[in-house]
This record gives sequence, structure tokens and C-alpha cells, in this order.
Amino acid sequence: MAATITLLTDFGYQDAYVGIVKGVIAAIAPTATVIDLTHGISPQDCWAARFNLLNAYPYFDADTIHVAVVDPGVGAARRGIAIKTDHGTFIGPDNGIFSGVLSQARPQKAVTLTNAKFWRSPTPSYTFHGRDIFAPAAAHLTSGVSLESLGQAIAPESLTQLTLPAVRETASGLVGVVQHCDRFGNVITTISKNRLLAQGRLPQEWSLMINRVTIPSVKTYSDCPPGTLVALVGSHGWVEIAVNGGSAAQTLQPQVGATPVYLQQQRAT
Amino acid sequence: MAATITLLTDFGYQDAYVGIVKGVIAAIAPTATVIDLTHGISPQDCWAARFNLLNAYPYFDADTIHVAVVDPGVGAARRGIAIKTDHGTFIGPDNGIFSGVLSQARPQKAVTLTNAKFWRSPTPSYTFHGRDIFAPAAAHLTSGVSLESLGQAIAPESLTQLTLPAVRETASGLVGVVQHCDRFGNVITTISKNRLLAQGRLPQEWSLMINRVTIPSVKTYSDCPPGTLVALVGSHGWVEIAVNGGSAAQTLQPQVGATPVYLQQQRAT
Amino acid sequence: MAATITLLTDFGYQDAYVGIVKGVIAAIAPTATVIDLTHGISPQDCWAARFNLLNAYPYFDADTIHVAVVDPGVGAARRGIAIKTDHGTFIGPDNGIFSGVLSQARPQKAVTLTNAKFWRSPTPSYTFHGRDIFAPAAAHLTSGVSLESLGQAIAPESLTQLTLPAVRETASGLVGVVQHCDRFGNVITTISKNRLLAQGRLPQEWSLMINRVTIPSVKTYSDCPPGTLVALVGSHGWVEIAVNGGSAAQTLQPQVGATPVYLQQQRAT
Repeated sequence: MAATITLLTDFGYQDAYVGIVKGVIAAIAPTATVIDLTHGISPQDCWAARFNLLNAYPYFDADTIHVAVVDPGVGAARRGIAIKTDHGTFIGPDNGIFSGVLSQARPQKAVTLTNAKFWRSPTPSYTFHGRDIFAPAAAHLTSGVSLESLGQAIAPESLTQLTLPAVRETASGLVGVVQHCDRFGNVITTISKNRLLAQGRLPQEWSLMINRVTIPSVKTYSDCPPGTLVALVGSHGWVEIAVNGGSAAQTLQPQVGATPVYLQQQRAT
Repeated sequence: MAATITLLTDFGYQDAYVGIVKGVIAAIAPTATVIDLTHGISPQDCWAARFNLLNAYPYFDADTIHVAVVDPGVGAARRGIAIKTDHGTFIGPDNGIFSGVLSQARPQKAVTLTNAKFWRSPTPSYTFHGRDIFAPAAAHLTSGVSLESLGQAIAPESLTQLTLPAVRETASGLVGVVQHCDRFGNVITTISKNRLLAQGRLPQEWSLMINRVTIPSVKTYSDCPPGTLVALVGSHGWVEIAVNGGSAAQTLQPQVGATPVYLQQQRAT
Repeated sequence: MAATITLLTDFGYQDAYVGIVKGVIAAIAPTATVIDLTHGISPQDCWAARFNLLNAYPYFDADTIHVAVVDPGVGAARRGIAIKTDHGTFIGPDNGIFSGVLSQARPQKAVTLTNAKFWRSPTPSYTFHGRDIFAPAAAHLTSGVSLESLGQAIAPESLTQLTLPAVRETASGLVGVVQHCDRFGNVITTISKNRLLAQGRLPQEWSLMINRVTIPSVKTYSDCPPGTLVALVGSHGWVEIAVNGGSAAQTLQPQVGATPVYLQQQRAT
């Protein structure tokens, strides 16, 4: 039985680009199961791709092939790559969108997709490698082609990184940044649940400061009146800021990758 | 062969939340067929979830398991439930989103999803029961687990209701309210085709008044000049208001659940 | 094994209409594979449907059944049709959405969908033929029903055309029009790569003029500074205008089907 292929792109939902990619996969690997992670990444938003891949990959088994196409450098010098890790194989442009995953899943081997034999045609387009190179590579892998035959081996350390400022410890707590805002307007920080637990803070014995606003911690969204800003450990394992029944992102207007968040040891008063 | 699972959520299309839920299902029930009803319900809009479930379930057979996650009370006191009816099994939060369906499909038995053995892990998140409780419950059902083993039996009469004002009869006709506005801007009322037929009104021998505007009835959208408001029996079996080539919702700005609509016995003049 | 059915509609993603159509297909042809081309066509935008079908169909094999429902005339006089071509079978309203495909794929036979035996019920709705007529027709075809039995044969020449102004040759080059704007804001013209090659112009030895702006040609989006307008042969084989990291459609505000584009023999200076 063919493995599962997941797709994450910024192709959106108004054109047939996603359908075309599925047609290409079906032509090569008709029995492969295709699961959409999302196609609603904002055009060229590599940070959002990185965050969503990082959150989604643990829910798929190690046989899964994840194709991700958010690719502002398509047709230029950036490499097309396939990376086999302990927890899934990843295919797409080498622009850092996999660097969140690679901070957790150990890479076993990586190749550049230089073998034209496994492209859709020997002369791929300059602008749609999702269709012409990445989807065919994934489909061929599910059909038994080896990773090695897709192209030249490269050192995993050479892969492009998209890195966020490291979480810092201060006298009064931790400092991170905003790393993503989701469709519910939840503002997700770089401070992880594990980091919180390592500091010995119990689920509700902390508060968060952002844009000079201090926000109390709760267990779940509805633990406070509608319209109130609250901080909690989100389902993805990151400290996030939410508004019960509203959008924290709209209220706080943070800059992804830049706006600092201060986790403080004491409860908010 | 595994049964079909449908999904209806407010997770949207910009993040990987839906993909994650599908990964969870595939891990438990790899051969289950998953069909998306929609993931574009507005955040926390239980009324829209109720309406869309009500319209969609008749098109699936009685073996189908419908998972619906529009869940403003997640992590708080509201129960997680599974309801087996004559016409499908329904899994999600007990907040009324199934009450439209339950006004038509007879419940046979219902349980709360308290058996941690069928959760994704013994410590589910406080904010993503779609991933941690509802999707696993559905996947286990398709794999042969019985409804009873998912948790404690509850009385179907105890389920939370989301009810709209009843349609009333007046001297000159019927009074209902707006119950939904769809993506085409069609304004859908609580007056059903059956209610219309019970009054002995033939398809075109009636008109509708809303916001002091009287609207003639037609058979289909194009039975009048572009831009005109028309009333008709929609494909879902409800009386609706449309604009040929435009949006009635934009023109009328009705309040769902509140704006009254008056169906009048005579034709509009 | 049942064939593949693709779906392209303007049903959007906020309601369960697409899910309902899939339920109808599954009830008739449970083993059919369904692939979404897109459901995000703007309401009633037959031009966008025509363009996306034209671009997507070549990626599917000749057994594929493409159902397309963008149907402003539903319930009125327009015919419901199925067309078997050398490169796939097409089902939907006869309003021109297939005329792009038919300019390339030779029709073998065509029928009107008048045989009520293959409708979902003998009394279809006036407003949702996607559910009641088109999806059932596709599902029956994948189950072995013949095209002929779906209804009366019609002459392929009688099918409704949606035609764009022909590309004209001038002393200094070619004149086409804008035919589509995609989700990335790419402005796609009616000038094809083949037309360009027929003129003997090498990939970068031309420029484009639109709205009195002259735009240089490049190979791929990133061949110029961010924010710059560039012209290139897109992945679909049409000459398009893009902005590296931005939206050409927003910058140029072209009218689809109307705004002229002038391809000039010399490079931009």
C-alpha cells in the first residue's frame, strides 16, 4: 500500500493549482493517500509554513511524505530538497520552511532534487516546482523510488535555517517573541510548555506581558469573561495569548518574529 | 470496509488544524474515508454549524459518523458527546450544534466521551478536543469500537438545545425568522417548504416581507432581472431570499435568529 | 476500479454545499476518487471557471470526469450537459465554462442530461443542479452507465461559447487581453507561449505594455528586485505579469476580458 502524502502550500483556494498538483500525484501514484495540511498560508509567508509544519508533522507516522511549497525563490538559485528524518520525509524548497521540524526530528539523509528523470518533464517551469518537481518526487517515493535516486546527497547541516530569537531567561522570568497568529486570532509565542515546566511554574502561576499589557494565565479560553485577554499553554504546546470569543491578534497587533513577550513568575493581579 | 467520517469545523483554511485532525484519524483508522463538510464556519458560530449539519446529514447514509467541532466552551464544563440516531452518528461538544439534526433524526442512544482509553492521550489539551477526543472517538467507532464503550450513557433529552423561534401562523400568513446567510448572500428563513405546502400555497402564490420590503416569489434565481430581490424555496427546503447575480444578505443586513420574515398569502404586486 | 471525479465550483468554503455533493457521489459510487480542483471561484464567475478548467484538465487522464458548477442560469433554460472529449469527460451547465477546454480537447460526443432516471430524484431542485443532476451523472458514469443513456445527443457545435478577443498581430508585436488574475495577484494574458515562440521571440527578448506601463520580461519572479512589475511565461503557458513579492493585479487593476496588453518585440529599456 502506498504511503500518505501531505500537502502544505500558499496556493490558496481560488484557483486550481492544488487540484493540478493532486492530478500530477495521481498520475504517478494512483493509490497514494493525499491529505491537505493547508493551502491557506499567506503568499510567500515562509514563517507561517515553518510554524504549521512544525505543529502538524508529529501527528503523522514516519512513512509519511510531507510536501511543502511556499517558495518565493522558485526558479532562482535555491535548491529543491528531500530530507528523510526519524519522523517523516520532507520535500520542498530549501528556504528554511523545514527548519522548525529539523529542530525536533533528526535528519537521516538529504538530497537535492537534481535527477530530471523524476521530474514531471525534463524542462520544468520556472515558477511552479510544486507541480513539476516536488509533487512528482513525493509520488515517486511512495511508489518505491529511493530517496538517493532523486538527486545528489547534501549535508543536512547545509540546509537553510529560519531561526527565531532564542528564549532568554531573566531575573523575573522568560523572554520570547511572537511566532505566529492563527485563524482564531490566537497569538502564539516561542515559549514552550517544556520551558515553562523547566522553570517549575505550575500551569496557572505565571502571567505574560506584551505591548506593556499584563495578561493573566488560565487553563482554557472560557476561564474568563468574553473579550478578556488571557495567556495559556495552547494545544500545540506553546504559550499563547487569546481573547475569549475574540481575536488577540487584532487587539495586540504583534509583529511575528519580533514583538517580545515577557513571562513573569508571579500571577497577574 | 470502514465507514465514512465527515468533518465540520470552524478551524478555517489558513492553519494546519484540519490536517492534524486527519492525521489523528488516519493513525487510528487508516482505511476510513474522510469527507469535509466545511471548515469555514465563522469562529464559534454554533448557529451556522447547526444549520449546515442539518442540511448536510440527509445526504449521507446511516453508517456515517459526523464529527462537528465548533466549540467555544472547550475545556470548560460542557460535555463531549456521541449520539447515535436513525440517520447517522454525531460526535462533538454538547452545545446545541446538533439540535437541528435532532429535530429530525431520532436519537437511539447518547454517551459522554468520558472513557480516556479512547482519547488520543490520557491528558488531552484544554483547547483542542477535536484532535484529542472527538476525532479519536470517530476513528475508533469506524474501527469497530461500540458507542457504549466511549463513555457513560446519557439521556438524549438532556442534550443542549439551540432553538429558533417557532414559525407562527397569522391571519395573513406565516411569520418566521432568518436562520442563516450563505456564501452566495442567500438569506435563509425558518419557514420550510412543507409548512408552505401545508398552507396550500402553490410555489409562486405567495410573497415575503422583511425589513418593510415586500419580495415576490419565483421558482429560480434567474426568473427576474439581475439585482432584484426574490423569494423562493431553496434547494435545502427552506424559503430563502436571493438577489439574481448579487447578495441579498448585503442588501438586507438581517440578524440571524432575530430578523422576522412575513410570508403573505397573496402575490406581490 | 472507479475513475476519478474532479470538482470545480463557486460553492465556496463557508457552507456544506461541497460536502453535500460528495455525499451524493459517495452514495452512488462509493469507490470513486474525488479530487477538488477548487471551490473558490467567485460566485457566478464563468470566466474564472473557464480559465481554471482549461489549465487543470491536462493533468488528469482521459478517464477522468470533471464536474464544474458555476451556474448563474440554474433552473432556467440553459441545458445541463455531458461532453466526452479525447481528454476527459466534462459535466455541468452549458454556459461556456467548458469552451476553453473545447478549444483544445476534441469533443467526441455530447448529451443533455435529460434522463431523469440518473438524477438524484425525479423532481430536482430549481437551484442546486450540482447536487441533483451533475454529481449524480458523474457518479453514474464512473459506475459504468454510458454517456448516451444520460440523455439526448446534441451537436458539439451547438455548445455555448465564452470567447475572448483573438490575439492580433501588429507591426510591433502582439495584442492580447487580460484573461485572469490569480490568488498571487498574477495578471494572466491571452498570449500563449506558443504564440510567442511562433514569432521567433526568445524567452527574454520581449516586453509588455499595459495601462501605458512598459514591463520587462524575465524568466522567474525573483529575477528582479521585490516590488517590481515583470512579465514572464507562466507555468500555465500564458504570458503573465507579476510583482516579485507583491500583487500585479492590485497594482494594475486590469479588467478581465477587456484590458489590452501589447507585446513588443524589443526588450524594455
